[in-house]
Amino acid sequence: MSTFRSDRVFRWEAGVLTQRIDELAREEPLEIRVRGRPISITMRTPGNDDELAAGFLLTEGVIQSRQDVLKIQPCEANEFGNRIDVLLAPTVAVDLERLTRHVFAASSCGLCGKATIDSIQRRLGPIQGDSPVVTASTLARFPEIMRKAQIAFDKTGGLHAAALFDENGELLVLREDVGRHNTVDKIVGHALLKGWIPLGRHVLLVSGRTSFEILQKSLAAGIPMVAAVSAPSNLAVQFATESRQTLIGFLRGDRMNVYAGAQRVKFQ
Amino acid sequence: MSTFRSDRVFRWEAGVLTQRIDELAREEPLEIRVRGRPISITMRTPGNDDELAAGFLLTEGVIQSRQDVLKIQPCEANEFGNRIDVLLAPTVAVDLERLTRHVFAASSCGLCGKATIDSIQRRLGPIQGDSPVVTASTLARFPEIMRKAQIAFDKTGGLHAAALFDENGELLVLREDVGRHNTVDKIVGHALLKGWIPLGRHVLLVSGRTSFEILQKSLAAGIPMVAAVSAPSNLAVQFATESRQTLIGFLRGDRMNVYAGAQRVKFQ
Repeated sequence: MSTFRSDRVFRWEAGVLTQRIDELAREEPLEIRVRGRPISITMRTPGNDDELAAGFLLTEGVIQSRQDVLKIQPCEANEFGNRIDVLLAPTVAVDLERLTRHVFAASSCGLCGKATIDSIQRRLGPIQGDSPVVTASTLARFPEIMRKAQIAFDKTGGLHAAALFDENGELLVLREDVGRHNTVDKIVGHALLKGWIPLGRHVLLVSGRTSFEILQKSLAAGIPMVAAVSAPSNLAVQFATESRQTLIGFLRGDRMNVYAGAQRVKFQ
Repeated sequence: MSTFRSDRVFRWEAGVLTQRIDELAREEPLEIRVRGRPISITMRTPGNDDELAAGFLLTEGVIQSRQDVLKIQPCEANEFGNRIDVLLAPTVAVDLERLTRHVFAASSCGLCGKATIDSIQRRLGPIQGDSPVVTASTLARFPEIMRKAQIAFDKTGGLHAAALFDENGELLVLREDVGRHNTVDKIVGHALLKGWIPLGRHVLLVSGRTSFEILQKSLAAGIPMVAAVSAPSNLAVQFATESRQTLIGFLRGDRMNVYAGAQRVKFQ
């Protein structure tokens, strides 16, 4: 249930006032617990919480593979379904320090975008090789395919989306959420639980802009190509360049900008 | 400097490949320090960092008024300008626990949206009274006024914006940032440093959607009316209803939806 029926809403249009019922995007907190300890609370759209938890743990560097997760289950004590427990294999060392937002960037001596990128890439390493190669015309069809699959957006207008495509242009999974980063964590978590990681022959499409964090999360899943309907930040471009990821922006209709890794796009 | 000139970008449009230089939205980490301790690292667009720090401290409940801040200055030791020190009055009790994202929602017995709202509103209390009253036609002009003032967006297409208007429809301040929440923190910080808090006769306009956190931050600044170009979440509507704030969504052209606090909108 990713939507919620509102009370009566006042609609004013061209000077005329009416009342109507509206569908709203749902937003609720989710607490993720590891070994009985809460490690994160995120505002998210309920649904696919197991994927969100798994993806969050992978993209934040707590786990590395499917084998690290024994079981993911809602906390029975929480009647609202907003707490989820991840049971990890005993061999997984949980570094709680790394999970606080503070730490990942502050570990470097000079605090700047470059040092932030370096600290992530020392851990993850760049993408190896230049595959897959996808034609520009295949990529250009992705936004419309995603848009048609966005059921909750159609109702609410209030949800971000991310979609995973294979190199042949087939949509594998789409997720919607009030949080941009959650859409990516859900996609990555889905892939992890399916045993698809690393996603070495895939393209991630996001509905909005691309920032440092979107690139960081996609690299953690091994995704070589990231595309977005809107603009990247300078740090996203710098990250993609150094991680050897392909970064595409303004993918709309018959146009796109390729900011990094253009060797994976076949333009003709 | 909120924009950054890219290296050469490949532009593909209607089957034709060209190369061009692009303007990108800047994204860099900012570390906020209080009493010598780092309390937050946020990815932000450089510029108005003093406002971002002041606004963050107010909206997260660390400080309550202009008097709580003695001085805000860049850390001299950081050559990149990405660390900022806030000197607080000795009377301010800093609760570092509250600053970690975890805590604000987890303090309630049951974890749910309602409990999250309650925990914020116990601290801040609802807006008093039903002023200001703003005509719908005045509100309808806000998005175009904001859009025209968005210098960096025009160049990059990659920045969120927030703007503060007074009850007569005058634009007081506009801020752009790669982070949605940062735009609101910068506006609130600007108001704090100018001695305008509480913003009891003002309207906050945001370029995107409204979530729980946008409402929380605006309530901390005493803002009675929040409007957005796009959709609210159900939790934003619930928050606004309980805090007696006016919440407007889909403010575009000659239309809007009023989700809460319609008594402050004069429709005719």
